[in-house]
Amino acid sequence: MKEEIMSRVNKLLASMRAQSIDAVLLATEEHSTKNVRYFSNFSGSTGYTLIAPDKQMIFTDSRYWEQTQAQSPLAFEKIKELNPRAFVSRYFQSYKRIGFEAKAMTVDFFNVFKAYLPPYVEWIPIDGLISTIRCAKSVEEKNKVVEANKIAIAAFKEMIGELKEGMTEKEAATILEFRMMKLGAEDKAFGTIVASGWRGALPHGVASDKKIEKGELIVFDFGCFLEGYCSDITRTIAFGKPSEEMIAVYHIVKEAQNRAERAAKSGMSGKEVDTIARDYITEMGYGEYFGHGLGHGIGLDVHEEPRVSQANQTALQVGAIVTIEPGVYLPNRFGVRIENDVFLGAETTEVLTDFPTDLIIV
Amino acid sequence: MKEEIMSRVNKLLASMRAQSIDAVLLATEEHSTKNVRYFSNFSGSTGYTLIAPDKQMIFTDSRYWEQTQAQSPLAFEKIKELNPRAFVSRYFQSYKRIGFEAKAMTVDFFNVFKAYLPPYVEWIPIDGLISTIRCAKSVEEKNKVVEANKIAIAAFKEMIGELKEGMTEKEAATILEFRMMKLGAEDKAFGTIVASGWRGALPHGVASDKKIEKGELIVFDFGCFLEGYCSDITRTIAFGKPSEEMIAVYHIVKEAQNRAERAAKSGMSGKEVDTIARDYITEMGYGEYFGHGLGHGIGLDVHEEPRVSQANQTALQVGAIVTIEPGVYLPNRFGVRIENDVFLGAETTEVLTDFPTDLIIV
Repeated sequence: MKEEIMSRVNKLLASMRAQSIDAVLLATEEHSTKNVRYFSNFSGSTGYTLIAPDKQMIFTDSRYWEQTQAQSPLAFEKIKELNPRAFVSRYFQSYKRIGFEAKAMTVDFFNVFKAYLPPYVEWIPIDGLISTIRCAKSVEEKNKVVEANKIAIAAFKEMIGELKEGMTEKEAATILEFRMMKLGAEDKAFGTIVASGWRGALPHGVASDKKIEKGELIVFDFGCFLEGYCSDITRTIAFGKPSEEMIAVYHIVKEAQNRAERAAKSGMSGKEVDTIARDYITEMGYGEYFGHGLGHGIGLDVHEEPRVSQANQTALQVGAIVTIEPGVYLPNRFGVRIENDVFLGAETTEVLTDFPTDLIIV
Repeated sequence: MKEEIMSRVNKLLASMRAQSIDAVLLATEEHSTKNVRYFSNFSGSTGYTLIAPDKQMIFTDSRYWEQTQAQSPLAFEKIKELNPRAFVSRYFQSYKRIGFEAKAMTVDFFNVFKAYLPPYVEWIPIDGLISTIRCAKSVEEKNKVVEANKIAIAAFKEMIGELKEGMTEKEAATILEFRMMKLGAEDKAFGTIVASGWRGALPHGVASDKKIEKGELIVFDFGCFLEGYCSDITRTIAFGKPSEEMIAVYHIVKEAQNRAERAAKSGMSGKEVDTIARDYITEMGYGEYFGHGLGHGIGLDVHEEPRVSQANQTALQVGAIVTIEPGVYLPNRFGVRIENDVFLGAETTEVLTDFPTDLIIV
């Protein structure tokens, strides 16, 4: 892990040099960000890092001293007073241009921290710079996403065997989450979506008390964390005999997903990949019922860069892991979504979700 | 619910008047806060509210239009453009002193929002003002915490029946969380702590792969959400026959917990209540092994005001719900913590965790 972390730190130092940034402050405190973990390997809830050409350090309080030393290759300072912001700020005194996480840090944290430093300091938001670095996954990171996929898939198969008519969506979600944990997941990656029948048409239909009934399609959107990295998978199954229209829509979404997945390559824009699935669904007459973007990056976070949508005209980076998840949502009737996680290598594209997308009828 | 929400809004308006604040902006977006939910009843992940004497409004995007109308009594505006911050800011144009959540809002959100408003606007942090209002729970809020306690207790009893030698802490935590969900919880309130044997001496010992062995004490710190409100309970049980020292320490912690719980009253300071438990543990010779504060407020958040610790010299407010959770942690040996949720009424104090604190031997 040490080598991996230092390689990340070195990428950050190179980006900082390009923007004349002297030092970067990352913090996990009242707000949560995975950046401290990414650049230090420390996974606790409260920690601070300083990344500068002359020193790379991590700071934690007494609750985490043992854990920090066990996890992080960075130079380690024990916070030894009640005010961690005052303590950490002392190490930043000599820098003039300081990078910080504007999209994660609270106004209060920023103001207090700033108050300890000279007034001439320039504060540079570095959210974009860091998300670009985090886009490009190493082999180790990819392997963790693969393992998180395996657990989620195995749990999904077990859960399907336990589905019963009259069971609520929430009961099905609870079983799926329980199975993921039993199979070794650290946690669910997000609130499991189970959306049956007409609820399948709600793109954000978290599991409810609605009962599952025969003849319905059920959308399951689920995933788990393993060693910090997540999986994010969607399958739509038929519970009992589906109608012909359900089967037809299913196959349109399946084909759209498959086309986008096969065509996706690093270097294409997010918009180009989105368009492949969208054009096919539109051609088949359901364009107006696919109301969200095709996918998003995953890694330490369930939603990270790059976006695979019409709004992203920049090239998808080598090493990105993205979801490909088209859907068709027919209001008050039913919905279909199918989602795999896909690695965009330099030469090849690799589907990390090793589970067929054929329609499962239970 | 409408009456309850409007009563909260009126309390906020009264506090604003006292500080000459013209309008308050609350937002749930990249950062998460329960303040939007508290003052609007809207429970979705992205929403904005404006509270001012002349208007009280909530703003959400198309994903949440149906949900907002169903949940919130506030005047509702549909966000109809891609930039919600620009959209919402238009409604704030006429105010001069605007209150905002400095401890929750990100620097980026604040800067963007501010850019749409006149430069003479004064921005007033209102975190303290809001947490004071949220301290005083209504009967409805108390009842939800009671129900969240009942579910957690029932799940805990079921889990104890399934404990087996050689089971890992994580397996036990998974069963407990599964049982809470089956009994109707919305979610676990936090990552369940299961800390057995020597791990019990780590105050933040989240469940690990360590196996449970005979003769160990096991600390379980657990809780769930119900209708947005949480429970937070700790019990320490003996797995197999405990040593005499374990029994002795257990009874010291039990007595300290009981003394503080019986003495706690609104109007006492957090420090005074903490001192009751701390003095007793110190008297019994274990003072140096009780390294954290006695408790904290709970409600929509698992940690909210008021703090029950040496650091809080202000009076505990009428209506606060606090945890009372002393512990003794003997490094590398074992730990004991016992925690109930307690309501501080105007005249009486009510223990909301209806479950004995006697030592359970499994």
